[in-house]
Amino acid sequence: MNGNRFGRLFQVTTYGESHGPGMGVTVSGCPAGLELSEEDIQRELDRRKPGQSMITTSRGEPDEVTIQSGIQDGYTTGTPIGMTIQNKDARSGKYEPFITAPRPSHGDFTYSAKFGTRNWGGGGRSSARETVNWVAAGAIAQKILQQHDVQVKAHVNQIGDVEAPEVSFEEMLEHTEENDVRCAHPETAEEMQALIEEYQEEGDSIGGSIYFEVHGVPRGLGAPRFDSVESRLGQAMLSVPATTAFEFGLGKEARTWTGKERNDDWEFDENDEPVPVENDHGGLQGGITTGLPIYGEVTLHAPTSIPKEQQTADWETGELTTERVIGRHDPVLPPRGVPVVEAMLNLTILDFMLLAGRINPDRLDGDLGEYDTDYHPSNPQHE
Amino acid sequence: MNGNRFGRLFQVTTYGESHGPGMGVTVSGCPAGLELSEEDIQRELDRRKPGQSMITTSRGEPDEVTIQSGIQDGYTTGTPIGMTIQNKDARSGKYEPFITAPRPSHGDFTYSAKFGTRNWGGGGRSSARETVNWVAAGAIAQKILQQHDVQVKAHVNQIGDVEAPEVSFEEMLEHTEENDVRCAHPETAEEMQALIEEYQEEGDSIGGSIYFEVHGVPRGLGAPRFDSVESRLGQAMLSVPATTAFEFGLGKEARTWTGKERNDDWEFDENDEPVPVENDHGGLQGGITTGLPIYGEVTLHAPTSIPKEQQTADWETGELTTERVIGRHDPVLPPRGVPVVEAMLNLTILDFMLLAGRINPDRLDGDLGEYDTDYHPSNPQHE
Amino acid sequence: MNGNRFGRLFQVTTYGESHGPGMGVTVSGCPAGLELSEEDIQRELDRRKPGQSMITTSRGEPDEVTIQSGIQDGYTTGTPIGMTIQNKDARSGKYEPFITAPRPSHGDFTYSAKFGTRNWGGGGRSSARETVNWVAAGAIAQKILQQHDVQVKAHVNQIGDVEAPEVSFEEMLEHTEENDVRCAHPETAEEMQALIEEYQEEGDSIGGSIYFEVHGVPRGLGAPRFDSVESRLGQAMLSVPATTAFEFGLGKEARTWTGKERNDDWEFDENDEPVPVENDHGGLQGGITTGLPIYGEVTLHAPTSIPKEQQTADWETGELTTERVIGRHDPVLPPRGVPVVEAMLNLTILDFMLLAGRINPDRLDGDLGEYDTDYHPSNPQHE
Amino acid sequence: MNGNRFGRLFQVTTYGESHGPGMGVTVSGCPAGLELSEEDIQRELDRRKPGQSMITTSRGEPDEVTIQSGIQDGYTTGTPIGMTIQNKDARSGKYEPFITAPRPSHGDFTYSAKFGTRNWGGGGRSSARETVNWVAAGAIAQKILQQHDVQVKAHVNQIGDVEAPEVSFEEMLEHTEENDVRCAHPETAEEMQALIEEYQEEGDSIGGSIYFEVHGVPRGLGAPRFDSVESRLGQAMLSVPATTAFEFGLGKEARTWTGKERNDDWEFDENDEPVPVENDHGGLQGGITTGLPIYGEVTLHAPTSIPKEQQTADWETGELTTERVIGRHDPVLPPRGVPVVEAMLNLTILDFMLLAGRINPDRLDGDLGEYDTDYHPSNPQHE
Repeated sequence: MNGNRFGRLFQVTTYGESHGPGMGVTVSGCPAGLELSEEDIQRELDRRKPGQSMITTSRGEPDEVTIQSGIQDGYTTGTPIGMTIQNKDARSGKYEPFITAPRPSHGDFTYSAKFGTRNWGGGGRSSARETVNWVAAGAIAQKILQQHDVQVKAHVNQIGDVEAPEVSFEEMLEHTEENDVRCAHPETAEEMQALIEEYQEEGDSIGGSIYFEVHGVPRGLGAPRFDSVESRLGQAMLSVPATTAFEFGLGKEARTWTGKERNDDWEFDENDEPVPVENDHGGLQGGITTGLPIYGEVTLHAPTSIPKEQQTADWETGELTTERVIGRHDPVLPPRGVPVVEAMLNLTILDFMLLAGRINPDRLDGDLGEYDTDYHPSNPQHE
Repeated sequence: MNGNRFGRLFQVTTYGESHGPGMGVTVSGCPAGLELSEEDIQRELDRRKPGQSMITTSRGEPDEVTIQSGIQDGYTTGTPIGMTIQNKDARSGKYEPFITAPRPSHGDFTYSAKFGTRNWGGGGRSSARETVNWVAAGAIAQKILQQHDVQVKAHVNQIGDVEAPEVSFEEMLEHTEENDVRCAHPETAEEMQALIEEYQEEGDSIGGSIYFEVHGVPRGLGAPRFDSVESRLGQAMLSVPATTAFEFGLGKEARTWTGKERNDDWEFDENDEPVPVENDHGGLQGGITTGLPIYGEVTLHAPTSIPKEQQTADWETGELTTERVIGRHDPVLPPRGVPVVEAMLNLTILDFMLLAGRINPDRLDGDLGEYDTDYHPSNPQHE
Repeated sequence: MNGNRFGRLFQVTTYGESHGPGMGVTVSGCPAGLELSEEDIQRELDRRKPGQSMITTSRGEPDEVTIQSGIQDGYTTGTPIGMTIQNKDARSGKYEPFITAPRPSHGDFTYSAKFGTRNWGGGGRSSARETVNWVAAGAIAQKILQQHDVQVKAHVNQIGDVEAPEVSFEEMLEHTEENDVRCAHPETAEEMQALIEEYQEEGDSIGGSIYFEVHGVPRGLGAPRFDSVESRLGQAMLSVPATTAFEFGLGKEARTWTGKERNDDWEFDENDEPVPVENDHGGLQGGITTGLPIYGEVTLHAPTSIPKEQQTADWETGELTTERVIGRHDPVLPPRGVPVVEAMLNLTILDFMLLAGRINPDRLDGDLGEYDTDYHPSNPQHE
Repeated sequence: MNGNRFGRLFQVTTYGESHGPGMGVTVSGCPAGLELSEEDIQRELDRRKPGQSMITTSRGEPDEVTIQSGIQDGYTTGTPIGMTIQNKDARSGKYEPFITAPRPSHGDFTYSAKFGTRNWGGGGRSSARETVNWVAAGAIAQKILQQHDVQVKAHVNQIGDVEAPEVSFEEMLEHTEENDVRCAHPETAEEMQALIEEYQEEGDSIGGSIYFEVHGVPRGLGAPRFDSVESRLGQAMLSVPATTAFEFGLGKEARTWTGKERNDDWEFDENDEPVPVENDHGGLQGGITTGLPIYGEVTLHAPTSIPKEQQTADWETGELTTERVIGRHDPVLPPRGVPVVEAMLNLTILDFMLLAGRINPDRLDGDLGEYDTDYHPSNPQHE
C-alpha cells in the first residue's frame, strides 16, 4: 500500500528519507543457517555508494550498515534481520528555495499533492537514497541464490545514443565492474564516460538503460498471470527510481516477429529433458521459467535535478520563477543503478524460489556447530 | 501467490480453464450504491469475445455472464460480486497429441514443470481465456471511474512493421471500435488487417502493440516506489498474456533524452495550481500522478499456436516429432487485447483511487430509493 | 480487507448472500495431484446443511456443489478450484418488515451503517449461509491433511447450562455424528436436545460451545507473534458467526494456575526427541506447535432471530415498534457449527503446513496416470 | 507469514531479539500532519519498561526510542516512521545451560523445531521484549485516535483467584496507573500485589487477565467474517505473549444466555438514530461496530521462566536433567501487559478507522505552517 514493502515470502520493509536521521530495512523470511556478516552487505552497498567516481554525486555518505537482529554467532536464525544505515551528510538547507516551487519533473509536487505536506529535504522519501535499503536486502538474497547456483548480473548497455554491442554473460561478469560506467564492453564504456562528462559540464544530464541476465534458475518457477515472473519483475523494475520501460526476451522488438520466427522448437538436453533450441522467449513461457536464462532491459530517464535554468511555479507566491538545482546530483543514473537492479532481481527471484520450495537449507553454509538442531522443517523428508 | 488475485482494495479473484466447465471472478471492495446490471458487464465481454471477426479464433463462446451476488434491486450492496461464465465450446480432444510433447513457446512445458501434471485442454489455465474474468471485473471498475470523470482508452498502434501515426485521445475514442483491428487510424487499420490476413493464410501469426491513455486522474494518486503507479501498472500489464514489454511516458526513448529536454517546466493552470507545461513525464512523477494524462504502451508477441510445422520433444516417448497446432487460434493478439488492457487499467487506477479516498459514494448513481440509509461511512463528514 | 478472503498459501475467496442467486468459493494454492470429486465436498456440505433435523432451520437447501475448474480426470491440477452452490429456497419477502427496523442484535443495523444500503434478504451477506463456502473449501483441506495423518475433530461440549463431561478424541470421532446435537457424550446429547427443544417451543434460542482437537500436527509449525498458530486460529474462530470467545489449552482457567503447575516438564519420546510430559500448553509453545494435540474451545451466542416479541426502532418512520422474527431459523448454533469450526481448523492448519513446506506431493494419491510428468517442483530433490 | 507484520493500512513491521543489538519497528500508513515527538512514544514505553516495580523483572533497559524517519519539523510527513531502541542490558551468558535443554513450556524447543537453530539469548525472538516495538507503534495510533475521540483503556481484572469487582470506564482511567499491578480497583490491587509477592518468594509465578474497553468508535467499522472487528482483535490479542483466551461482550458466558436475554432491543438516541438499549453485544453486531463501547478480556498464563526446579531433556546429551531458570523474569504478566494490550487495541482500531475513511486530516493537529500545501487527497471534497 505504502510503497515500502516488497516480497511475499522473502519480505523487505524499508524506511528513510534523504535528509532524515537514518535509513533502515527489515528482512523477514530469510532461512536460518546462512552465514552472514556486515561485510557481506557492505560489499554491495559500496558498489551503490555516492561519491565513488567523477560521474556520481559527491555527497559523502559512507553508508555503513549495522545488523541489529536475526544473526547469532555469524549465522542467520530465521527471525527478522533489521539493518540500519545512518545518514551522515544531509544538508537540507540547500533545498529551501524549492519548498513551494517544485523542481521540474521531480517528485516534489506529486508528493505534496499526495501527502498534503512538503518534505523538502533533498527529495525526502522520493530520493533514490531509499535504494540503499534495497541493496542491503538484496545482498542477503544474492548470497542465498549463489549457494543455489543462481547468478544475476546487469550492466549498462546504452547511455544517450551510445549503445554497447551484445556481450556474453561471461563478459558481463568480467568487465562490468572495471569501469565507472559499469558497461561490460570496455571501449563503449569509454565513449559513454565521455558523453556523460560532456552533459555534466553543460549542467545537464542524460538517460540510459541497463541490460540484465539471470542464470541457473530452475524450471517451473513462477505462477500464472498476476504472479508470473515477468509480472513481478515488472513491478520490481518499475519501482527503481526513474524507470520508464521494462522488457524481457525480445521486448518491444517482439511486435515485428512472426510466431514461426519467435517460437522456439524443442529438443532434448543432456538429461533427456525437453529444452528449447533457442531463447527468444527470454527464459519465460506462460509466466513460468523454462530453465534457460531470463534476460531483459530497464530504461532509466535522465536525472531531473540539473544545474541548467528551468522554470517553476511557486504556489505560495503565485509567481513563475526560474531555478537551478545546485545540489550534489548524479549526471546519469544507470551506473549506480546496476547494483540496484541486481538487488531487485535477487529479491524477486529468491522470493519465487522460496514459494516453489526450492531453497534447500542443506545447501546453505549449514554447519551451525553446537546450535544445529537437525530440525529442518522446510525439508519434509527429515520426519 | 497463485496468480489469480489482483488489487488491494478493489480485489479481483479468478478461476477457470480454457476447457473446464466454467470461468468465474469475485470482485470485492466495490462500493455500495452503484447501479449495475449484467448488461454493463456483457457489453465489455462482447468486445473481447472470440469469433467476432475473421481475424479472431472461431471458437464459439457466447461468454454470457451471470451475477451471483452483491447486487440488490439493481444496485451494488458493497458485498462481494460473484460472476460466472460457463464454457460452451470446449473441445479438448483436439489437443491430445500435445499431452507430453509441448507446443513451442507455449506454457505447456512450464506448467507441467511447475505443477507436476499436464493440463492439456486448450492450454488449461495458461490460456488467454482467463482474461474473460478480467474484462468482467474491469467493466465494474470502468463504470465507477466514469462517474468520477476518469476515462481509459487503448488502441492498436502497431502490427508487425505497420505502425500507426500518432492519434489524439478523441480519435482513439471515436475510431478504435470501428474496425476489427481496433486501430484508431482507419487507413493504418486496413493495412494491418491485410498484413494479419497474409500471415494467417501462411499458417503463421504476428506480434503487435497497444497504446493507451488514462484521462481525468486526480493529482496525488499512487505511492512511493514498490507501490508507484508505474510499478503496479507494470505488474498489471505484464500479466496480460504474451506481453514482453511495458513502458509509460517516453518509455525506451527516454534513454536518449537529456534532463533538460525531458524535464517539464511548471506553469499555473486555470485554478492557479502548478501544472507541467508538457507531458513528457507520462502523467507520473516520483511514482505519483501529476493530473496530466497517463500514457504508455504494451507489446504483445505473436500467438504461439500456429498451423505451421514445428519441432517438439515428447518426454514420454523420448522422441523428437513435428506438430501443427490446428486449433482455433487468433493470428494476432492486440485486437482482442485492447479490452483486456483497458480492463487492467481500470482495475489498477480504481484501486489507487480507493486507496486515496477519492471514490465518493455521492457520485455513484446514488438513489437507493427506500433502501438508502444515508449512512456513508467512507464519507466522514456525514457524522 | 473485505472479509471474504482467508489463508496465506491455501487461499479461500468467497461470495454470496443468503437470498441471492448463489454462493461461491475459489480455492487457490491447492497442490496438484489430489484425487478430488464433488462427492468429497458434498459429504461435508451435507453435515452443515439446513433442515437436517428438528433443531435446525427448515429452509430447504440441497446445497449441491459444482466444481467449475482446477480438476482434470479426477485430480487437482494445481490451478484455482472454483466451486458454486446455487440458492434454491430464498424467500426474501418474509423479511420486508425489517428493511428499516433492525432486528435486535442482528447485523442489520451495522451492515447498513457500513455499506450505506439495506440488504434485507435474510440478512444478506451477514447470514451464516456464507459458511457453506467455508465447509466446501475445508473439505479439500481436510482431504490433504488426512493424507498427512493430521486429524481435526470438534463436538458440542455445552448448551446453556448443560455441560458434557470430558471425552477422549476417540469418543469424539465415534459419537459426535450419532446425534443431532453433535455432542460426543450420548447422554449429555439427549439432555441438550431436550433443552434446545424447550427454548424452541418458547420462541427463544440458546447459546453453547464447541470443543475441538487437532491430532498429528508436526512440531515446528507456526511463526512468532502475529502469525502464531493461536493468533491465526483466533482470527479463524472469531470469524465463525456468533462467536464471542476463543481459547486454547487451559484457556481462561490459566489465570488461576501457577507457572510450576502449568509448565510441562520435558522427557524423551520413543525416538529420543524431547516431548512434554503433559499437554497443559495445548500443543503450542511460543506460538509454535510442540507436536502434541492442539485443543481449544469456541463459544457461540444464542441465535438472534427469535419469534419472541422484541422492540426495534424504525429509522424511516422514527417510531419504536415491536417485531417477531418469523423466518426459518436455528434455535441453537453449535450443532451446525461443528462442521464449520472443523472447516476453519482444516484451512488454518493446512495453511501452516504449506508455509512450513510440510505438504509432500508424494503423499497425495499421486498416480496421475498418463498425465504424470514426474516434475514436482515443491520436491526439490527430484532435480 | 513471518510473524513480524501487523495491520492492513496502518502497517507495523518489527525486528529484534531479547539479547541482540537492538529492537526496531517501522510504521507505514500514518497520515501526514500529526504532531509527533519521541516523548509521545517514550511515555508509553516507560509504562511497559522492565524494572519499574518490585513485581517486574529487574533487567535494566532504559528503552529509549529514536525516530529515524517520517517526521519533519515535528510533524509526520506520511512516509514510513522508523523507530529504533537499543538493547543495553543483554546478558546472554546466563542462558547457556538451556542451549539444548529446553525450558518447560517456553518457546525454546518449538523455535528450534521451526528454525533448525537454537537462539538461546534470553529466548531470542520469542521473548516478550518484542512488545516494546508494539508499544512504540501503538503510541502513534493512540495519538491519532485520541484526536478522533476514540479512547482505549485496559486494566488487570484478575490475578490467580483474586478477582476485581466490575469498575466503570472512568475508574479505569483514573485508578489503573496508580498501583504497580495496574488494577483499577485499589483494594483488589493490594490483594493482587500480596498474592504476586507470595508466588515470587516461592520461586513460582501466576497467571491473570486483562479487561479492556474502547469508547468513541463510530458505528459501521469492520467488515464481514474474516475481517470482522472481533476476528482481527482475536488475532491481535492472541499475538500477545502468553495469551490463552480472548473474549468480547459476554464472552464464554454467552453460552448460558438465551436469545431473548442477550438480544439488545433498539431505541432512538439523542440524534434520532437507532441505538441498542443495552450492550450485551459488546459493541459488535455481525462483526461491525454499533457505536457502543467494545469491551472484552484477555487471559495471560503464568510466566514460564521460574526459579523452581523443573525437569528437562537435553537433546545433545540425551539425558534428563533438572534446571532452575535464574534470569530476571516477571512473576506475573498482566501488569506490564496492560500497555501492550492497549497498544494492540489502538493499532487494530485505527486500522479499521483508516479502512473506513474515518481518519480526517483536518482533525490532526494540522497546522503545517509554511509547509502546508492544502492538498489533502484523503479528503475528496477539497477538489
